[in-house]
Amino acid sequence: MSVSRDEHVFAQGGDSIITRTPFPASRKVYVQGSDPSIQVPMREIAQSATAAGRNNLRAEENPPIVVYDTSGPYTDPAIAIDVRSGLNALRLPWIVGRGDVVEQNDIASAYARKRANDPSLAGIRFLPQRKALRAKPGSRVTQMHYARRGEITPEMEFIAIRENQRCEEVAEALARQHPGKDWGAALPKRITPEFVRDEVARGRAIIPANINHPEIEPMIIGRNFLVKINANIGNSAVTSSIEEEVEKMVWAIRWGADTVMDLSTGPNIHETREWIMRNSPVPIGTVPIYQALEKVDGRPEELTWDLFRDTLIEQAEQGVDYFTIHAGVLLRFVPMTAGRMTGIVSRGGSIMAKWCLAHHQENFLYTHWDEICEIMAAYDVSFSIGDGLRPGSIYDANDEAQFAELHVQGDLTRRAWAQDVQVMNEGPGHVPMHMVKENMEKQLEWCGEAPFYTLGPLTTDIAPGYDHLTSAIGAAMIGWYGTAMLCYVTPKEHLGLPDKNDVREGVITYKIAAHAADLAKGHPGAQIRDNALSKARFEFRWEDQFNLGLDPERAKEFHDATLPAEGAKVAHFCSMCGPKFCSMEITQQVRDYARQLGIDEQSAQDAGMQSKAKEFVDSGAEIYQPAK
Amino acid sequence: MSVSRDEHVFAQGGDSIITRTPFPASRKVYVQGSDPSIQVPMREIAQSATAAGRNNLRAEENPPIVVYDTSGPYTDPAIAIDVRSGLNALRLPWIVGRGDVVEQNDIASAYARKRANDPSLAGIRFLPQRKALRAKPGSRVTQMHYARRGEITPEMEFIAIRENQRCEEVAEALARQHPGKDWGAALPKRITPEFVRDEVARGRAIIPANINHPEIEPMIIGRNFLVKINANIGNSAVTSSIEEEVEKMVWAIRWGADTVMDLSTGPNIHETREWIMRNSPVPIGTVPIYQALEKVDGRPEELTWDLFRDTLIEQAEQGVDYFTIHAGVLLRFVPMTAGRMTGIVSRGGSIMAKWCLAHHQENFLYTHWDEICEIMAAYDVSFSIGDGLRPGSIYDANDEAQFAELHVQGDLTRRAWAQDVQVMNEGPGHVPMHMVKENMEKQLEWCGEAPFYTLGPLTTDIAPGYDHLTSAIGAAMIGWYGTAMLCYVTPKEHLGLPDKNDVREGVITYKIAAHAADLAKGHPGAQIRDNALSKARFEFRWEDQFNLGLDPERAKEFHDATLPAEGAKVAHFCSMCGPKFCSMEITQQVRDYARQLGIDEQSAQDAGMQSKAKEFVDSGAEIYQPAK
Repeated sequence: MSVSRDEHVFAQGGDSIITRTPFPASRKVYVQGSDPSIQVPMREIAQSATAAGRNNLRAEENPPIVVYDTSGPYTDPAIAIDVRSGLNALRLPWIVGRGDVVEQNDIASAYARKRANDPSLAGIRFLPQRKALRAKPGSRVTQMHYARRGEITPEMEFIAIRENQRCEEVAEALARQHPGKDWGAALPKRITPEFVRDEVARGRAIIPANINHPEIEPMIIGRNFLVKINANIGNSAVTSSIEEEVEKMVWAIRWGADTVMDLSTGPNIHETREWIMRNSPVPIGTVPIYQALEKVDGRPEELTWDLFRDTLIEQAEQGVDYFTIHAGVLLRFVPMTAGRMTGIVSRGGSIMAKWCLAHHQENFLYTHWDEICEIMAAYDVSFSIGDGLRPGSIYDANDEAQFAELHVQGDLTRRAWAQDVQVMNEGPGHVPMHMVKENMEKQLEWCGEAPFYTLGPLTTDIAPGYDHLTSAIGAAMIGWYGTAMLCYVTPKEHLGLPDKNDVREGVITYKIAAHAADLAKGHPGAQIRDNALSKARFEFRWEDQFNLGLDPERAKEFHDATLPAEGAKVAHFCSMCGPKFCSMEITQQVRDYARQLGIDEQSAQDAGMQSKAKEFVDSGAEIYQPAK
Repeated sequence: MSVSRDEHVFAQGGDSIITRTPFPASRKVYVQGSDPSIQVPMREIAQSATAAGRNNLRAEENPPIVVYDTSGPYTDPAIAIDVRSGLNALRLPWIVGRGDVVEQNDIASAYARKRANDPSLAGIRFLPQRKALRAKPGSRVTQMHYARRGEITPEMEFIAIRENQRCEEVAEALARQHPGKDWGAALPKRITPEFVRDEVARGRAIIPANINHPEIEPMIIGRNFLVKINANIGNSAVTSSIEEEVEKMVWAIRWGADTVMDLSTGPNIHETREWIMRNSPVPIGTVPIYQALEKVDGRPEELTWDLFRDTLIEQAEQGVDYFTIHAGVLLRFVPMTAGRMTGIVSRGGSIMAKWCLAHHQENFLYTHWDEICEIMAAYDVSFSIGDGLRPGSIYDANDEAQFAELHVQGDLTRRAWAQDVQVMNEGPGHVPMHMVKENMEKQLEWCGEAPFYTLGPLTTDIAPGYDHLTSAIGAAMIGWYGTAMLCYVTPKEHLGLPDKNDVREGVITYKIAAHAADLAKGHPGAQIRDNALSKARFEFRWEDQFNLGLDPERAKEFHDATLPAEGAKVAHFCSMCGPKFCSMEITQQVRDYARQLGIDEQSAQDAGMQSKAKEFVDSGAEIYQPAK
């Protein structure tokens, strides 16, 4: 009996399970760039007006607040979604228009060809299969390449508009924020397309945007932009449909994931990945060595360069936007981990260490680095240079092995840049607070300011079940110091596989860390949302408080009608009385006033105070008054 | 129909609801001091042995780990608990033995006398009512007073033993930690009773220990000791029994609260507080102005010094260990809050601001400060000088009003010290990361290093429902910088009243923040638990991992048997091969070896590497090997 493709795709007989509910009081808005094809999505949160009367508030309108929106078309009710068709390939005209790519008639990866020709996979294959693009021979199609030759791509313009979050429209609000301390970052008041270009050209930011992933809404990862977060997803044994795998991605970006890493394993990852790629509006990252390892039945010593190379091409043709590659785990570094509390905890690092030991040869990812760069340049896949020797415990933090690898990451970064390939560097793990900064400083110095992308760090080992939290502390700090993207940790870390609630908790936790970092750096406009929410809180506009928060649902659920209303207030008695009045006993004015009335100073002061006391009581004895 | 006292006390007809379950694999141990009356409780967590065989581990015993234990007799199955009798008054012989207190035949507080003589309260009154103690006329009975005259009290010795957590027995483990960065703190390698005395004498630490609260297990709050946390509890409208109020305290200390603030309101707070005091092994703090306000039906302008004074004495006689008093909210500071985003958000600050405005007179808490100090000195109640003008939003952080009050807190601190009264200062609220340190620095400078006690700070306003987390980031940082005690925030902050789960989440969150701070400061012994847990993790001793964690129940619940076992390992191939081997191609040794064999350098190197590769594969191709 044959099973139709739709039965593999849909869990519930055609009823889509993809989450599409827009956020409350929110609408998707699109800001158009210099060309109608540049439509930058944002979320606009409407606020209610401040009502007159209650708590002496003066009636006034409150403007809508625009926030960065990672959720893609899924939260736009005007857009029809069918996972079978995938998203609109909005970047395709830009990519093709540059004239440096060729549509491939043949699939370049041997493995992918085999899968494409396997009739038994018809039921789970995404169709129609778009022909892969590849750089014309001799061309490099990376955003870094364009940036270096002075070209502002539509992607760059899109990003400039997106990063500004329309905050130029609220110049007054923009001014109402703390200056921040940026540790030597170079945050401009306003992001221009030229600034984006310049940051990409010098390697200080990356735009992960494979030419075979035209569906993405371009975004940027760099120290001088908003701090980004990544969520990991992976398939699970119990999942029964492809749509459920897509929903994991949709769910993560709904709560704020800027990129998603697909760490799936198993027999059909090639096909599952295709579905995720075609439906993802955010960049997708992978760790290709995981899939390569499956191809040799989990035996690291049997990994070969040829097999790995084919896997890179397979995934590059599908559109993966960045690859984690553990090329810095060198043979001579492995012994440095012998005295560790927790040895090698990175899966990729562990695989490569085994390979190195089994052959007693140098890591083949390292020895083939330049060839890997060539592949990356032909598709514009960005590097996320893996930190295979990251510390897995407080004890192992910042040790010789970790920093030896980081130093090599720097060399690899420069070699990739020589081929115009975009690079970020992976870092941390478990690091106590006082050792966090050293990681950032060394990375900036050794890796030429390439974006840093860190897991946590976890600031203590003693709280299994709460490691989203032990790590959010470190993540907020390292984000403040200059890390460009934070890889989330869920409450299930070290214990089990995250479920939907864990993913939500992990993503929100990391949005908090990233935003706290933006505030501390003094990122222009970062405080607009805090100010709006605080004003709503002060004015007891409960719905606005919920809606402006990162998780309106939870806030609403927690809200308890029995909460005492004390503290409700808005305009201030003292703003009428004048800030200097109550210090008048120490001023010349009292003396003058006394002389004028012919009384002694104390009496003058008492008289003034009594009249102010009466005024306060007569006006209702409320600190907060209708503002005049 | 009369209702018996027990019906008020017990919710469930005599079945106690007090949580008494010990933690898994844990036993309560008592370390005896110089006198048999000094019995210092600790929790000892047993670990399983490392099993030989699996993952090439070598069999070995793992020592039990001792952790600081705030949970009191409730987790000791050997001790019978009856809330009607209260806890053992372990400090009573010490207090009486000092010969400077007098048992009071009459209740000094007029309000308390009235309550004691009201027959309608018989059902809810804790009995027998112990006669209150008070300092002999002319005596000061504070720990600071004793410390200054060079006396080491049993409380101080108890604390020294407690703070050391028996870590002198694990000298080797003690050495296995990072040095930390302490920002000028003076952490000794080992806490001696003399060090405790000296810190209390100079005002850098306090021992909140009212002579009328002899039931407490003494603890200390100071920058050079373990960072402490406080949990707030309050009565709720739905609670039906006194035992439930006691259980809230028991629940908070179970998860790690070092002190508990009772913020209850309502008609029977006097009696409810008595039950909590008699059953609490941790210091209890209150905000007396809350109760004073109830006595004038919630009208701040009707508050008087006499009424407040009577409330102080009422609570001091019951044994409250520290009072939050908002004496730094001066009339002239109130106008400074007029331009704020969220005005005055502290309840106590708001009450005092209204009083000041209604009378246009200086805050009566400020003008009567010396008299308040006299009362504190007569019972050894510690000050927690309130921060009535703390910022309620990121926008208001570190503003003129906040720091003006902090400066006055410093003056008040010195005046209290002049009367030997112990003092800590309250701080933060909402503060972005980069402005946190300034709070600590100013407090240290202006308040003479008196312990700082901060709420959070919350590092962003945009996540209602997650403010335990927005604040844990700030709390960990300010704890690292030198804050002595962190006041917890629950996920319900700003939204509603915390339930049991929220209290647990809040307390664990703050234990994480406090512990992360201890690690970062380099507190001696702080890393022992991290190291033990990490070793258990590395060796896949799952139960030990759960048991060593802050919340064993949650960890166990999260643990998923399907978690892939990859990464399991313990001893290391490279520790046999030697750390220098794999760098040999760059050493003189290769050249020597080549000359010796009469071959070229490359061949010599290849031969060595091949032999090592074979050795690795022959030994099972596992990075982790049985250690030799």
